[in-house]
Amino acid sequence: MSEPYELTLSEAAMAIARGELSPVTLTESVLSRVEQVEPQLNAFACVTAEIAQTAAKQAEQEIAEGSYRGPLHGIPLGVKDLYETAGVPTTSSSKVRADYVPTSDSTVVARLLDAGMIMIGKTHTHEFALGGITPTTRNPWNTAHIPGGSSGGSGAAVASGEVMVGLGSDTGGSIRMPAALCGTVGLKPTYGLVSRRGVASLSWSLDHVGPLTRTVRDTALVMDAIAAYERADPASVDLTGSGGLPGYTAALDTGAAQDLTGITVGVPTELFFDDVDPEVEGAVRAAVATLGDLGARVVEVSIPMADLIPAAAQLIVRAEVASYHRSMLREKGDLYTEQVRLGIEAGNLVLAIDYVDALRVRTLVQRAWAEMITTTGVDVVAAPSTPFPAPPADLGEITWPSGSVEKHSRGVGRYASPANLLGLPGLSVPVGISGAQSVITAGLPIGMQLIGRPFDEATVLRVGHAYEQTRTPMLPVLHG
Amino acid sequence: MSEPYELTLSEAAMAIARGELSPVTLTESVLSRVEQVEPQLNAFACVTAEIAQTAAKQAEQEIAEGSYRGPLHGIPLGVKDLYETAGVPTTSSSKVRADYVPTSDSTVVARLLDAGMIMIGKTHTHEFALGGITPTTRNPWNTAHIPGGSSGGSGAAVASGEVMVGLGSDTGGSIRMPAALCGTVGLKPTYGLVSRRGVASLSWSLDHVGPLTRTVRDTALVMDAIAAYERADPASVDLTGSGGLPGYTAALDTGAAQDLTGITVGVPTELFFDDVDPEVEGAVRAAVATLGDLGARVVEVSIPMADLIPAAAQLIVRAEVASYHRSMLREKGDLYTEQVRLGIEAGNLVLAIDYVDALRVRTLVQRAWAEMITTTGVDVVAAPSTPFPAPPADLGEITWPSGSVEKHSRGVGRYASPANLLGLPGLSVPVGISGAQSVITAGLPIGMQLIGRPFDEATVLRVGHAYEQTRTPMLPVLHG
Repeated sequence: MSEPYELTLSEAAMAIARGELSPVTLTESVLSRVEQVEPQLNAFACVTAEIAQTAAKQAEQEIAEGSYRGPLHGIPLGVKDLYETAGVPTTSSSKVRADYVPTSDSTVVARLLDAGMIMIGKTHTHEFALGGITPTTRNPWNTAHIPGGSSGGSGAAVASGEVMVGLGSDTGGSIRMPAALCGTVGLKPTYGLVSRRGVASLSWSLDHVGPLTRTVRDTALVMDAIAAYERADPASVDLTGSGGLPGYTAALDTGAAQDLTGITVGVPTELFFDDVDPEVEGAVRAAVATLGDLGARVVEVSIPMADLIPAAAQLIVRAEVASYHRSMLREKGDLYTEQVRLGIEAGNLVLAIDYVDALRVRTLVQRAWAEMITTTGVDVVAAPSTPFPAPPADLGEITWPSGSVEKHSRGVGRYASPANLLGLPGLSVPVGISGAQSVITAGLPIGMQLIGRPFDEATVLRVGHAYEQTRTPMLPVLHG
Repeated sequence: MSEPYELTLSEAAMAIARGELSPVTLTESVLSRVEQVEPQLNAFACVTAEIAQTAAKQAEQEIAEGSYRGPLHGIPLGVKDLYETAGVPTTSSSKVRADYVPTSDSTVVARLLDAGMIMIGKTHTHEFALGGITPTTRNPWNTAHIPGGSSGGSGAAVASGEVMVGLGSDTGGSIRMPAALCGTVGLKPTYGLVSRRGVASLSWSLDHVGPLTRTVRDTALVMDAIAAYERADPASVDLTGSGGLPGYTAALDTGAAQDLTGITVGVPTELFFDDVDPEVEGAVRAAVATLGDLGARVVEVSIPMADLIPAAAQLIVRAEVASYHRSMLREKGDLYTEQVRLGIEAGNLVLAIDYVDALRVRTLVQRAWAEMITTTGVDVVAAPSTPFPAPPADLGEITWPSGSVEKHSRGVGRYASPANLLGLPGLSVPVGISGAQSVITAGLPIGMQLIGRPFDEATVLRVGHAYEQTRTPMLPVLHG
C-alpha cells in the first residue's frame, strides 16, 4: 500500500472524509517525507513542523466532532515565501526581508487555512521572484537539474510528495514553468480572479497568484476556495454582475465532462513551436491529438502580434519591478544579490514613453486576441509550457537548429508571456517524459499549456481534466 | 421675439417637432450669427456652411415627410477640431495636421449626424489640446478675455449662439474649463462611457469626450445619443451586465426630479477652495445653499490625498502625450509651435518608474475616494470648476492672499484633475457672474463643478438641472 504522502489532494480528502485517514497521520507522513527528501531538494525556506502538527491535531478533533470543513480540511500546504504568513518569516528569499515576520496572513493563505489546510512550511523562490530559476532548489525528477522558477520550491515540494498543494505566483510563467519542469499541474488564473493582497509584488500589472497540485481536479478544489473578489487588490474583479463565479470542481463532475465534443482547441502557428525541443513538440502534439480523440475540434490559430508580446511584457516587468523596489533599493541595496540588484537597477532607466508604448501594445494585442477567439471559436489554445524540459543546475545554453543560441535561464520562459500580458488563464498539465531526442536529457517531465478565455477557468480545467483521465499520473523516483 | 439662434437645444427641438421651426431657418439664423460674431470670437477653424445648408434641407424634407428622427434632428452642432469628420479637414489646430482630411467620422460625430444634427463647422482648440487656453479664440462675455481651453472654440460658439451643441474633450479640464469660463454647461462623462474612436489623443488613460450646451437638459439629450459601448475604444465599458444605460433625459422628467430630497451633496474641505477668487467661492457656496433649499443634504467631505492628485495627473499626461506624439515629432517636429513642442519633449524625459508610481497613486486615490463616498453617502461633490473666471487674453499671474503667485495659464486647470485621474463624471454648470471683488474682473461667468459617482451621470445631471431651474439662463451681450 502506498504511503499517505503519495496521495493526491482528492484522494486524501476522500479518505479523510470517510474517516479512513487522520490529518495527523497524513501530516506525519508528509513531514517524514520532507525529512527524507529535503537534503536533496531544498524546496523549503522554512518547515513549520510544530505549527503543522498542532493544526493537524485540531483538524482531527474537529472532524471527529463532526465539524468537517470540506475537501481541503487536513490537507498539507506549501506556501511560496512571497506570501505573508502571520507569525512565520516571509523572506521572499532575500536578505532584504530576512527579518520580516508578518502579523497577518495574505488573503489566499487565510482562505486556505480557514478551509482547514495544514501549512507545512514556506517554499523557496528566486529572490523576490525575479527569475525563472530557483537557485536553492533541485528538481525531484533529476536532482542535477533545476525545478524552474520562481515558484520552484512549490513545484519541487508538490512533485515529491512534501505537500499536496503548493502556492505560486506567476508574472512571466512562474507557476507554469515549475509545474512543467517538475511534472505537476499549475494554474495561473485570469488577472483579477484571485486576490494578491499580502503577496510581495514583482510587476503589479502582470502578477497573478495560483496553485500547483498533482492533478487538475486538485487545482479545481483549491480554486473553489481562493477565487473571490477583494477590494484591497486594486486589480480584483467583482464578477457578481456577470453571473458570479462558477463551481470549478462541479464543472469537472458533470456527466459529459470527459467528452470534449463542442470544445475547440487552437494550435498556434506562431511563437509556441519556434526553437522547441523535439521531445516537447512531440509530446504536446500527441496530447492535442488525444484531445481530438476525446471529441474536441482541433484548429490551427495564428497568434496576433507574436513578435511584440515578449518584448512588451519584458519592458513592463522591468519598469514595474524598479518601481516596487525603489525605496528598498535605496535603503538596503547592499543586501540584494548582485545579479538581482543589477536587474532591478536596469529598470530605473526605462523611459515612460517606452512603458506607455508597451501598455498600448498590450491593448492592441488584447483586442487582436479577442478577435482571433471570435473568428476561430477557440476555447483553449494548446501549446508547450516551456520550450525544453528542466535545464541542468549549472545552466548553460542551447544552439537551436535555426542557428540561434539561447541561454537556458532565458529560454525557459519564452512561451509564458502571452498569458501574462493578456491576463488569460493558463494551465500547465504534464503530458509526458522526455526521451533520447531531447536537447536537455531524457527522463524529465514535459508540460502542455492550455490558455483559455478570460475568467473561463472552468473550461480550461475541464479540458485538462479530460486529458488527464487518459494517462496514469507520474511520480518522480528520487535518485539518491 | 428672439432669433432662432438664441433658443436652447430643447426649445429648438420642441419648435421643430411641432413644425413651428424649420431646420433650414434655424441653420440660416445660426450661420448669420456666425458671420456676425466670428470676427470678434474666431471660434471656428472652419465653417462648413454648404454642408450645413444641404443637411438642413434634407432634415426639413425628412421631417416634412414624417421621418422625424428625434430631438437632435435639425439642430446645429460645432465639432472640436480634434474629432475626425469625413471629408472635412481635421487639423487639431496644428500645422502638423494642416492637410489631414479623414475619410470617416469619429464615433460621436457619426452618432450625432445619424440623429440628424447639422454640423456648422469645426471649432478651435489649443494645438493638439495641449493646454487650458485656446490661443485663437476670444470669450463672448468679454472679448478681451480667453474662453478657456482646450475646447475653447466649442465653449465660445455655444455661449454666443453660433451652435447649440459643441463637442469637447477633457484630459485635464478641457470641457469643464471653457464651459465655466464661457457660461455654458459642460459634461466630462465617466471614463469609458463615451467612445473616443476617431478623436486625436492627448493622454490615453485620462482622455474623455463630451458635450458643451446651454442647459443641463440639452446635455442630457446629447448623452442619450452618444453614450454607448464600442469595442474599438479599448477604454470603453460595456454596461450591459450592470443593467445597461439609464435614460439621461428621462431621469430629469420624473415627477420628483426637482426635489433633491435623498441626495447628499459633499462640499470639499481640501483642494477646491484653496487660493480661490472670492467671487467664485461666493457664487459656488450660494449655489450649494440652493441645492440645500431644494432638499439635498449638504455635508463637508475631506478629499483624500488631495496633494498627490494634481502631481500624479500631470505626470501621467506628460508621459502619455510624449508617447502619442513620438513619431509625429520625429517626422514633423518643426511644424509644432515651439511652446507645444517643448512641452511634448519634456515628456520624453519622464522615467517609467515615476509613471508607474503615478499609476499606483491613482489606484490608491481611487480606493480612498470610493471609501469616502461609502462613508459619507455623498452622491455629488460640489466645488468650483475653476479658481477664477476667464483671464485676460494677454494672460498674466495672480498673487493670492496666501502669498503664492500663480500664472493664469496654469491656475485655470487647478480644480480639474481629480475627475480626470479618477475617471468620474464632472459637470460644470453656470452659477453666476463675477462682481467687483474678483481677482480678474467683473462681468464674467462662474462655473460650479458637480463630481458624481462612476457611471452615475443621471444623478449629476438631475442635480445640475434642479439647480438650473432656480435661475434665469444668461446669454452674453457681445461687445463690439
